[in-house]
Amino acid sequence: MSAHIATLLVACPDRKGLVASLAQVLYGHGANILDSDQHTDPIASMFFQRLRFDLSSLTTDRVSLENGIREVGARFAMEWRLSYGERVRKVAIFASKLEHCLYDLLIRHRAGELACEIAMVISNHADAEPIARHFGVPFHHVPVTAETKEAAEAAAHELIAAAGVELIVLARYMQILSPGFVARYPASIINIHHSFLPAFVGANPYRQAYEKGVKMIGATSHYVTADLDQGPIIEQGTVRSSHRDSVDDLVRKGRDLEKRVLAQAVRDHLEDRILVYAGKTVVFD
Amino acid sequence: MSAHIATLLVACPDRKGLVASLAQVLYGHGANILDSDQHTDPIASMFFQRLRFDLSSLTTDRVSLENGIREVGARFAMEWRLSYGERVRKVAIFASKLEHCLYDLLIRHRAGELACEIAMVISNHADAEPIARHFGVPFHHVPVTAETKEAAEAAAHELIAAAGVELIVLARYMQILSPGFVARYPASIINIHHSFLPAFVGANPYRQAYEKGVKMIGATSHYVTADLDQGPIIEQGTVRSSHRDSVDDLVRKGRDLEKRVLAQAVRDHLEDRILVYAGKTVVFD
Amino acid sequence: MSAHIATLLVACPDRKGLVASLAQVLYGHGANILDSDQHTDPIASMFFQRLRFDLSSLTTDRVSLENGIREVGARFAMEWRLSYGERVRKVAIFASKLEHCLYDLLIRHRAGELACEIAMVISNHADAEPIARHFGVPFHHVPVTAETKEAAEAAAHELIAAAGVELIVLARYMQILSPGFVARYPASIINIHHSFLPAFVGANPYRQAYEKGVKMIGATSHYVTADLDQGPIIEQGTVRSSHRDSVDDLVRKGRDLEKRVLAQAVRDHLEDRILVYAGKTVVFD
Amino acid sequence: MSAHIATLLVACPDRKGLVASLAQVLYGHGANILDSDQHTDPIASMFFQRLRFDLSSLTTDRVSLENGIREVGARFAMEWRLSYGERVRKVAIFASKLEHCLYDLLIRHRAGELACEIAMVISNHADAEPIARHFGVPFHHVPVTAETKEAAEAAAHELIAAAGVELIVLARYMQILSPGFVARYPASIINIHHSFLPAFVGANPYRQAYEKGVKMIGATSHYVTADLDQGPIIEQGTVRSSHRDSVDDLVRKGRDLEKRVLAQAVRDHLEDRILVYAGKTVVFD
Repeated sequence: MSAHIATLLVACPDRKGLVASLAQVLYGHGANILDSDQHTDPIASMFFQRLRFDLSSLTTDRVSLENGIREVGARFAMEWRLSYGERVRKVAIFASKLEHCLYDLLIRHRAGELACEIAMVISNHADAEPIARHFGVPFHHVPVTAETKEAAEAAAHELIAAAGVELIVLARYMQILSPGFVARYPASIINIHHSFLPAFVGANPYRQAYEKGVKMIGATSHYVTADLDQGPIIEQGTVRSSHRDSVDDLVRKGRDLEKRVLAQAVRDHLEDRILVYAGKTVVFD
Repeated sequence: MSAHIATLLVACPDRKGLVASLAQVLYGHGANILDSDQHTDPIASMFFQRLRFDLSSLTTDRVSLENGIREVGARFAMEWRLSYGERVRKVAIFASKLEHCLYDLLIRHRAGELACEIAMVISNHADAEPIARHFGVPFHHVPVTAETKEAAEAAAHELIAAAGVELIVLARYMQILSPGFVARYPASIINIHHSFLPAFVGANPYRQAYEKGVKMIGATSHYVTADLDQGPIIEQGTVRSSHRDSVDDLVRKGRDLEKRVLAQAVRDHLEDRILVYAGKTVVFD
Repeated sequence: MSAHIATLLVACPDRKGLVASLAQVLYGHGANILDSDQHTDPIASMFFQRLRFDLSSLTTDRVSLENGIREVGARFAMEWRLSYGERVRKVAIFASKLEHCLYDLLIRHRAGELACEIAMVISNHADAEPIARHFGVPFHHVPVTAETKEAAEAAAHELIAAAGVELIVLARYMQILSPGFVARYPASIINIHHSFLPAFVGANPYRQAYEKGVKMIGATSHYVTADLDQGPIIEQGTVRSSHRDSVDDLVRKGRDLEKRVLAQAVRDHLEDRILVYAGKTVVFD
Repeated sequence: MSAHIATLLVACPDRKGLVASLAQVLYGHGANILDSDQHTDPIASMFFQRLRFDLSSLTTDRVSLENGIREVGARFAMEWRLSYGERVRKVAIFASKLEHCLYDLLIRHRAGELACEIAMVISNHADAEPIARHFGVPFHHVPVTAETKEAAEAAAHELIAAAGVELIVLARYMQILSPGFVARYPASIINIHHSFLPAFVGANPYRQAYEKGVKMIGATSHYVTADLDQGPIIEQGTVRSSHRDSVDDLVRKGRDLEKRVLAQAVRDHLEDRILVYAGKTVVFD
């Protein structure tokens, strides 16, 4: 994203004058609004907005602009987040043996689809090392057993903190993160679950789907919370299946879904399109 | 379907020589195979086949052909069903207040999409009467209350039996049929559930979907069994939803899915494409 | 749509301050913005916005509000259109022998999906009369031959003008409208073409698709312009096909697409979601 | 695919007794049919069948079986092709600068999705060398200019012939192959075109799509023939687009389609699912 573009994400109780106040403060500082998308949840009486604007015509400076936004934010009890295009976020990918999502994210990053720096790949298996190396990404092998889980999470946390990682992507990472670890990264860990949640929670969703005889399978990307497979859903996809599909066929078909659905969620996150509230998400498109 | 076309559906334990024996008996009587589709479930070790053939070149007669099939069937312990194209099956549609699936089936029938006779519409509300009348279909108003449920089902059964109905389609029929009623029509009652089963069983699936914040909604057609929402799935469909969709929007989007998914299931059934085993279906396409 | 809701559609050359000025004028009159969606085309350097707002909290009156918008509109050289929720637009459906789109629109209207009044059905065949009557919609039989085309269009125009129709929907209407007729209704005639335009323009697209052996078929709704099948595309849909599909099967599968794609376009139009520029459309969702 | 599985593909004029004769000859030699799929084109009066069978129970030997099939084939004027599961076909991938399809095929192959040996990657750019090397696949840099085209094609042909390559996959290969080269590999070169053919033939289909303002984009895999972009279509896919999508966005969305659609075609080819006739394909699923 160009350095002179900024994105503002806002959530607050709905009130009259919100749109005008935000537009006014941006205009007052000379920012040119490129995109604005807004959602009002009439049941929760909540207001959400995403604004993208050009800073190159700013008549004041960033500090003044931020002060202006802060003032409006305080007036309307807003939660807000301002991101500057030149600030490249750091991402850590957690992987296990399955490599399709890992490859997919690295290839998309290389093609310029993901505006971030892949700061590291962490895996509980050494197999992913050549893959990370091929893409020039640091690799850390952090094995996990029932006994070493706590230490492993501490090691991972240390690596992440040292690098300034802001987003963790679980690319079919087969370990369950502890509530303590998860609590450190609210709305900052994205997982891909290989089913159409809330159908087929838990282990072996493709086998569950096979046994149920469903005619479509799905994949779901979501933020990780302490409740397994229950975090706010970001993106979902489905594809047809039939009696001809063995469990292996479903696994193969599912890989395509998982890659696409996970990458879309990561992309939405990195482009500041997602707001979380009431256990679900607003994803501006 | 043309009168001279017949369809044979077969299910049996897998054994060598099945395909050859069936092809041979048809050829031996002069039938010309137009389509054949086969599936072997290697786990259940079961064999399934659907054969469509032309009888106009028959060198013997139907009785001889059926005897031939019966002999092969006995040899391989087959369950089989032979349908002649000229035999038009009778269908009863059960409806309540929601009319979109009812309209849809009647319009598709009129357009020639459903090879059957719509023998009657039965509804627990009188509202559907003008619709049935518009399409020239007999209408029966059979109100249902907690007290009269048994009598209402008996009345419905009598109407169905008298007319020789072979398939019951629940077109968003809002009453739960008793296990006794269901047991009378094995694999002969098709329901449409307004969710992507097994997600969101029970009441108000669109509200459940809204509260969960899913990014796709679905619909599922299935044979009705004594276990509510658990019968063998015939067809499913999904469509994208977003934070912008209210429950009413999901209901509206869902109507399109429900119509399409239910009609496809009815069509598959009428074209003898469906075999049920192990709580799921083979649907030849 | 509720009477106290208004929708403002705006198109103009892109300039700084547009969003703020519009938001400010609405806020200044006490209107509460419910939704706002914006698009900037950086190549054409054009700005587009759709604003939905609540008038029930208006501190002035509609005349003042409109004057305010007019003033801003003049300042930024805007084309703009303001629609009040209580004003129900009148729609004329043109049909021929094929009835699926006609039925579909009438059923959706009855279900409350289309915020309009279906003022009339005009057909060059009498067959649609019972359908219109069933839904309580006036029907006009206007036969068309090569010789009577001009007179027929004049008759249609008279009916439409007398009723105050603002949108004409060609529901598989099999006559080509003259450039003169089309010119009278810019961006106000919606057609459904039974292919994935620009593939398979002209007659018999399903036959063309069959002969080409495509693996998906499509449908396209578009505004009608003097260039046949070339008007701005509003909505498209596709569905899989295969070697098993005869032309008749494609026609059947296509009906579902046509209904859905046409209805979506009509809905988008009636909800003031569409802006036309440079031969294509912005459709706010 | 297991070594004891064979696949028989058959095409011939339709006649009575075809299915029985083929089933009989397989049964007579002790082969156990696992899958059979059949299609009759009533217009062309052509018969197509795909049979997969288990050879482990063969009571004669392969030579006898082939003789038996040959005899039936001659009787019915069949074109037929018999493939043994243990024979691993060799594939050459042609690539240029764009690497997404190349990566995709190599990753799928590594995951066991493509039953073949990737014998080599040939590219007119050196960039792909590290990619091929990462996957342990031989790489050949064969630059192409207008002047050297003939020599380059000769060099490529030599490499292919020496390695015994049976399938060439153009993974976004940006050179047009000469009719002479193409003629050497009938139904053995698979290309991916980045549009929903026959829409947007030729160069820059994403730009064409952008300018036309379509609401869906597509990708098409097809066998290469002397007529550019006109070969028999194997697989197609589509995805929604909108006014928000720049040409770059369409390119990005298209990459996902291209990967999936090309891989599916390659997979179908390698599993002997495709028959070509009358400029189009039968693809058994």
